[in-house]
Amino acid sequence: MTAHAHTALAAMPTMDDIRAAARRIEGLARRTPLLESPALNEKFGGRLLFKPEVLQRTGSFKFRGAYNKIASLTQEERARGVVAFSSGNHAQGVAAAAGLFGIRAVIVMPADAPAIKADNVRAMGAEIVPYDRYGQDREIVARPYVEQGMALVKPFDDPLIVAGQGTVGLEIAEDAAAMGARLDAVVTPCGGGGLMAGIATAIKALSPETQIWGAEPENFDDTRRSLAAGSRVGADPAGTSICDALMSPMPGELTFAINRKLVAGVVGVTETSVAAAMRDAAAHLKLVVEPGGAAAFAAFPSGEIALAGRTIAVVLSGGNVDLDLFARLTAAA
Amino acid sequence: MTAHAHTALAAMPTMDDIRAAARRIEGLARRTPLLESPALNEKFGGRLLFKPEVLQRTGSFKFRGAYNKIASLTQEERARGVVAFSSGNHAQGVAAAAGLFGIRAVIVMPADAPAIKADNVRAMGAEIVPYDRYGQDREIVARPYVEQGMALVKPFDDPLIVAGQGTVGLEIAEDAAAMGARLDAVVTPCGGGGLMAGIATAIKALSPETQIWGAEPENFDDTRRSLAAGSRVGADPAGTSICDALMSPMPGELTFAINRKLVAGVVGVTETSVAAAMRDAAAHLKLVVEPGGAAAFAAFPSGEIALAGRTIAVVLSGGNVDLDLFARLTAAA
Repeated sequence: MTAHAHTALAAMPTMDDIRAAARRIEGLARRTPLLESPALNEKFGGRLLFKPEVLQRTGSFKFRGAYNKIASLTQEERARGVVAFSSGNHAQGVAAAAGLFGIRAVIVMPADAPAIKADNVRAMGAEIVPYDRYGQDREIVARPYVEQGMALVKPFDDPLIVAGQGTVGLEIAEDAAAMGARLDAVVTPCGGGGLMAGIATAIKALSPETQIWGAEPENFDDTRRSLAAGSRVGADPAGTSICDALMSPMPGELTFAINRKLVAGVVGVTETSVAAAMRDAAAHLKLVVEPGGAAAFAAFPSGEIALAGRTIAVVLSGGNVDLDLFARLTAAA
Repeated sequence: MTAHAHTALAAMPTMDDIRAAARRIEGLARRTPLLESPALNEKFGGRLLFKPEVLQRTGSFKFRGAYNKIASLTQEERARGVVAFSSGNHAQGVAAAAGLFGIRAVIVMPADAPAIKADNVRAMGAEIVPYDRYGQDREIVARPYVEQGMALVKPFDDPLIVAGQGTVGLEIAEDAAAMGARLDAVVTPCGGGGLMAGIATAIKALSPETQIWGAEPENFDDTRRSLAAGSRVGADPAGTSICDALMSPMPGELTFAINRKLVAGVVGVTETSVAAAMRDAAAHLKLVVEPGGAAAFAAFPSGEIALAGRTIAVVLSGGNVDLDLFARLTAAA
């Protein structure tokens, strides 16, 4: 083991960190329910329990980690404000959390992010600094703000962010147990890997026999490639996807160290499957799910995750999609 | 007071009947949350607490009343099966409840009901008898089944149905109190008036100062007309509406007797307002709401319900809409 890897391992959040995050966000984040549809169970041949983070404050799970991070800054650090880079959902989580603390938030955001995400960030009082997703390094764009003394709230590669997102896994485990359901697997969308790492940490602590699966766009499969390579590699730089929330170019150092230990596998999902999953979620769960948020539900057609007779939690991680795109994807049968 | 009115009054369900219904449906109906969006609060200038019955079993509130009614039949009555007439949501509620008891269900349903509603009823094992909404009397179509000994599960004009729907109001009152919110008003869609009568009974018992408002399509406003006339009158027979769930031709005898006592007023909503409400619910609450289900939320643009600085619960009563219509209504800005 290299010294480098050792550093990452030392920072891995524990179940205690996730429970601490759960206490911090209580009453501020929504405890989203587990939803079940007899029609979808019949269609897929397994028992599917959906975790609708589309109903979360700001429309995605991202508020959990952002609030946990900002709440953990010292009062002095917090007073100098926060800066974040994000494709949109993390931006909204940071803007909402910063708003609750009444501090300044600067968000470095791709110029082509969905309008709904940019509008929501502005409505929450944060400042947007746009950048070119394909030509500029967002970390470099954010650097001047960090040098001014603002705290960087990373989108995933931070133990406090991972612990915050891990509360999704804690709630899934608790609510499944309360329903008397034994989880065979949890499937979650995977961008930078923070949500998956947090969920995996919680679920493996509480239900070690439950498998953790991730889902990435087939053309933006950096975590799948990294798991195959045994070390972090990037997605195809030419790859694009309708799943804007999942277009992180490379897994995080910390998140990959966690995920490579705990995850059963990552499925690459097609855009056709994503659209079908969005349609099924709208028709049977009455939920608006964004493309990236539907990736885990879109993983079933690949056949890689066994379904028959099993009980599987499916994370619907976000719902921030422009309604004209939503209409286009769900109306086409 | 006429003898006739006296009969209706005698059958009015009480808070005890609603609590009994709540015990019967517990663990079978979903206890839907109260959802709030800071962006919608800001847009409308009041605090809006949404009761998303789109997340209810079968995608609308109708399961509550149907299950309460069927559970209250004697075992012998139940064994002979049930028959219902419905535009679609009550049909699904009856089909689901009958399915839980393993009994036969026959549903008399308009031939032009949304495909999703008919498909769902068939998927739950019920038999559909189609009829012409504009040319046939559905009560006459249902009669032969009643004469065979099957129990009629009316869509609204039955104290057990009203008590079941009243659990929506009970949950709103309890959850608002738990949030520390004092409700100035509750607004609910109104078809035959069963949901509104049940909610009004619960809310007025638990929070007498809270106003109850209904919302009907402006072209299918039988309850509004009846309140103005002081007695039950029908909607314009030539009226049509995109709110298929609210196209009951006349208020029920029982439901009108309750609503005329307890309701502050009924607002007629335009199709433009309904589409805007569906769009706002999709964009900010991430919910798929059907046209009729969005009627209460569509009542605000009329200005009849004071909003500024007030706290108002808004019932989103159902989400069973064909996705192509949903796309058409929500994508158009």
